[in-house]
This record gives sequence, structure tokens and C-alpha cells, in this order.
Amino acid sequence: MLVRTVMLAVGVSLIAAPTFADPLPSWNDTDAKTEIVGFVNRVTDPDSDDYVTPADRIAVFDNDGTLWAEQPAYFQILFALETLREKAKDDPSVAASDTLKAAVAGDMETFLAGGKEALLELVTTTHSGMSVSQFQDEVRAWLETARHPKTGRAYTQMVYQPMLELLSYLRDEGFQTYITSGGGVHFMRAFTEDAYGIPTSQVIGSAGKTSYAVVDGTPVLMKDPGIAFIDDKEGKPVAIDSQIGKRPIFAGGNSDGDFAMLEWTTAGDGPRFGLIVHHTDAEREWAYDRDSHIGRLERGLDEADERGWLVIDMAEDWKTIWP
Amino acid sequence: MLVRTVMLAVGVSLIAAPTFADPLPSWNDTDAKTEIVGFVNRVTDPDSDDYVTPADRIAVFDNDGTLWAEQPAYFQILFALETLREKAKDDPSVAASDTLKAAVAGDMETFLAGGKEALLELVTTTHSGMSVSQFQDEVRAWLETARHPKTGRAYTQMVYQPMLELLSYLRDEGFQTYITSGGGVHFMRAFTEDAYGIPTSQVIGSAGKTSYAVVDGTPVLMKDPGIAFIDDKEGKPVAIDSQIGKRPIFAGGNSDGDFAMLEWTTAGDGPRFGLIVHHTDAEREWAYDRDSHIGRLERGLDEADERGWLVIDMAEDWKTIWP
Repeated sequence: MLVRTVMLAVGVSLIAAPTFADPLPSWNDTDAKTEIVGFVNRVTDPDSDDYVTPADRIAVFDNDGTLWAEQPAYFQILFALETLREKAKDDPSVAASDTLKAAVAGDMETFLAGGKEALLELVTTTHSGMSVSQFQDEVRAWLETARHPKTGRAYTQMVYQPMLELLSYLRDEGFQTYITSGGGVHFMRAFTEDAYGIPTSQVIGSAGKTSYAVVDGTPVLMKDPGIAFIDDKEGKPVAIDSQIGKRPIFAGGNSDGDFAMLEWTTAGDGPRFGLIVHHTDAEREWAYDRDSHIGRLERGLDEADERGWLVIDMAEDWKTIWP
Repeated sequence: MLVRTVMLAVGVSLIAAPTFADPLPSWNDTDAKTEIVGFVNRVTDPDSDDYVTPADRIAVFDNDGTLWAEQPAYFQILFALETLREKAKDDPSVAASDTLKAAVAGDMETFLAGGKEALLELVTTTHSGMSVSQFQDEVRAWLETARHPKTGRAYTQMVYQPMLELLSYLRDEGFQTYITSGGGVHFMRAFTEDAYGIPTSQVIGSAGKTSYAVVDGTPVLMKDPGIAFIDDKEGKPVAIDSQIGKRPIFAGGNSDGDFAMLEWTTAGDGPRFGLIVHHTDAEREWAYDRDSHIGRLERGLDEADERGWLVIDMAEDWKTIWP
């Protein structure tokens, strides 16, 4: 009888475990966590008025500043600068203009004074003239060795642990989790499957021009100069329509570049969730919003309340930041 | 004992059923069927050298002429012409040019003499100036009432039963089935989920320009004039890269517009399958290839053999055509 009682007890605890396990252990027990879990419970409970069929449980997330850090500059820009410097070591003619020469020399003031044109030149030089798979090999090689100037961490270790848990939690509850980022789609897909568990088909981003060619009998996809699509601001709902073809029910971002995506998502009928990651943690991460040169968040802060969007206070709501 | 024997027999037959059930009942027992089933068995058998993990079991299919018929003209063009005529009844000014006036009057010779420009004008007039959801409501309403001039069938009943079975079979075996068509993505998504069981996110097509706007406080996605992307020929591998981000292992098409897609798919390492639907059945469907004004198939026929692509002979290989 004792054995049977013990086995029953073990059995019960095994069965009960999934119900009581905390799906978001790196989140403090604040209202933010309660709101998220409450929403997920409502849309997944077949007896709830807010029940949403799994096919419509689509969640979209910005990447830079939402799933991983974005300071002191977008990591893709750091990749481009370091790649340019590496290439210029072998072949100085790669830095063809004064702007790029300044970037190679580490004179960021001169480089940044070039504005958008300087950035486009940097991206063209480092992101085109090779096949998609060659480019992604370069990105993977960089991610393996590069370290963040402040934290000393690998960049793929600067993803937010609480957001990793949120992605897993949503998927465990039948959601499809998409990335909708201003970052380059080829750049992101070099790490998003390993870092976030998100397959390449669910990664939407900005894109350079791509062409198909047969070179010496071998078909290749080539990265060409020029921009095909910028997945930012009003471009985000357009990209969601183009690639998903359905309005999401959950959207997460961190800057005003995500405003239109949250607006589009939460204007749909039925239960909707808008989430903004507010960078309030100068100790463990960074603190910035209205006046930041990167990830500027102003309209989102002003209107989150009236729109019913949840603003995550990183310092208050997150127990840990990094994995 | 008798009861037990009967129950055992029933049990065995129930358990065995999935193994012996024919996944492609509308296909004749020709080499085509044997090749398809053999390939699927190899890539799904964990003990096979050709085993492919489910995440990489990606299959792409053209739509017009591959999954549904395309004669006497692409059904989307028939939709556009009928929609133009309906709209012109209420407001004759809709047919603003002589070309469109000819189309409204049924003078197809004059209309078709306008070439690509006439088609673009027709598409612009019927596919823009409204929201994506308004447009898709129009498509659905048309599909409900419109009937094909030759067969008298609803257009969604002119999908190929053998291809429906192939799609289901592949999905049952862990494949993701995508459409990669020159047809408009908004047009297709109005019926592809019901007709083929393919979710909107797995439907890739040509696209007009789309913009996001807030109109009287309501966010909408608007269909604007102008072409954003043509998903045909070399555009197909580019679109596959853009939206799937992985090379498929199975591609099916019917015209030289699908050549690059089949070439890209089957040039990858490991097991690959290229399939061409050859329209050889003037009795039950249509017979056309090298000289056709639509769905022209020449290079595909010439090179299928050396490339190891399977050419489906509709008349020989398919037991039935329509559902």
C-alpha cells in the first residue's frame, strides 16, 4: 500500500506539474507577467469568449531592442564595420570613399556625419557581391568570435532571457512566433533559429536586392547592391500582410519603429495584445527612450495607456536580463 | 474465442490500414506514382541514407496549370475581366481607355493586342484603390458564383484531384507545402486555404504595391497601383529565398516559368524531386506545351530527362482530373 501511495503521489505530481510550472521564471511577479499569462489563458481556453483557434495565434516581435540588445549601435552595423575593417586589411581598396576610410580608421564621428548615405555605402560594401550562403557563413563566423564592447559577451548571448521564455511559452500554447525586424533578413536568419527557435520562414526583415543566376553551371542566389525593402514603421504591417497574410493577435516591440505594427495588430477584432519593452535598466542593460539616437520611443510611451498596450519596465519586471 | 479472433483481426486491419492505404488513389499505377512514393519513403525513413529532417521537408508548387487549370486564360484574368464588366455597368467611366472599353465590350482581339500594358491596365483598375480585405471579399464573391466557360464548374472545383492528394500526402509525411505562383498573392489567399489546405503564410505570389494607412481612425492595408514583385521565372527562387529562407527539396510546376524554381530546388545536395505536370489530356482537360500562348513548356520538356525531373503525363498518369 505504501508503494502504491507513493506511486500515486508521484503520478499526481507528474501530471499536475505542467499546470503549475512557471512558464516565465525570469519575470518578476508584477502586473506585466499577470497580464501576459491572463491573455494567453483566455485565448487558449476553449470555454473562453476570447478563445482563438491555433491557426490564428500569430505573434510578431521586433528584434533589435526587443529580443536582443541594440546598444551602442545595431549589432548588424557593428558586424558591417568589423567586416569592413577585416576586408580592408587584405585589400585597402575596399574602403573606396573617405567615409569608408574614416570607418576603417575608427573615426566614427566622420563616418556617422555621412548619415544614411554612409550607412548605405557600408551595407552595400559588406552585404553585396556574394551569394546569400557566403554572406551567412561570414555572419556565423563573426558571431562565433565577436564580443560586445561593453559586456564582453557573444552577441547571441545578448538576447533577453525573459523574452526567450515568452517566445517558448507562446509556442507551447500553440502560437506561431514571427520576427518582424528592420534588421536584414539574411543577417538574422544566420542565428535566429539557434538563438530563438524560430525557423527561417518566420523571420521577416529588411532586404537588399537578390538575384538568381547560374554561375559555371551552379545556380546561386546573389546579394546585389541596393535596397529591396525596409521593414520598419509602416513597412512592418505591409510585410506582415505580404508574408503572413493574416493580422497577428500579439505584437511586441520597443521603439516607435514598431508603432504601426502594434497599431495594426491591436486594431483587429477580438483579443489582442500589444507589448513594448521599455529600456529602464541602466545598471543591467541600458536606459533610453524619448531622446535616444537608437530605438527612440516617444509616441509609444505617450499612447500605450489609451491603447491598452503593456509597457514592460525592464528594471522592475525582469528578474534577469541575459541567459 | 471466435469473438476474440474477430476482434484481433479487426484490430490488426485497423492498425495496418495506414501502411497499406493508397495515399494517391487518383493516380494510376504507373512509374510516376512509384517514383513519388519511393522518394517520400526514402526521405521519411530514419534508416535511409536519404532521410531528411521534417524541418527541411519543404515542397513548393506553382498554382496555375499545376494545382488548378489555366485555360482558356489564367482564372485571375477572367476574374479581372468579369469584375471590370460588372463595375462598368454601374459606372462606365471605369473603362477609361479604348483598351478597357474593348474588354468590356467583349472584343478580346483588340484588348489582347494591347499586350502587357493592357493587362497591367486591367489589373490596376480591378486590383487597386481598395483595401486588401475588400479585394478578397470581391474575389470570394466571384468564386462563389462564377462558372468556367467550358466545364461549367466553379473555378475552385477545377483544382486537380491528383494534386490535392499529393499535397495531403506530403503534409501527412511531415512536409510543409508552399505555393509559389505568378498569380497575385492576395487573389490566391482568398481560396488557397479552403481549396488546398495551405495557410496564407505558405502562399507566395506576385504582388501589387501595398501601403499602410489610418483612415478615419481605422488602420487599413491598401492595394495601390503598380507592381511590387513578379513571382515568375528567376523571381521564383528569389521569392523562395525571401519568404522561406531555405532551399526546398521538392518542386512542382508545369511551364518554363517554373524552370528556375525546379533548377534551384534540384541543384541542392541530397535527395531532391522535380515534377512537371504535362498537359496531354485534350479529352478531360487540355493538351498544350511548346506552342501554347499560356503555360508554355519547352525547355522543361527538353531537359527533364537529363535533370532527372519527373514529367507527369496527365492522360496516362491520372485516373481522374477533377474532384
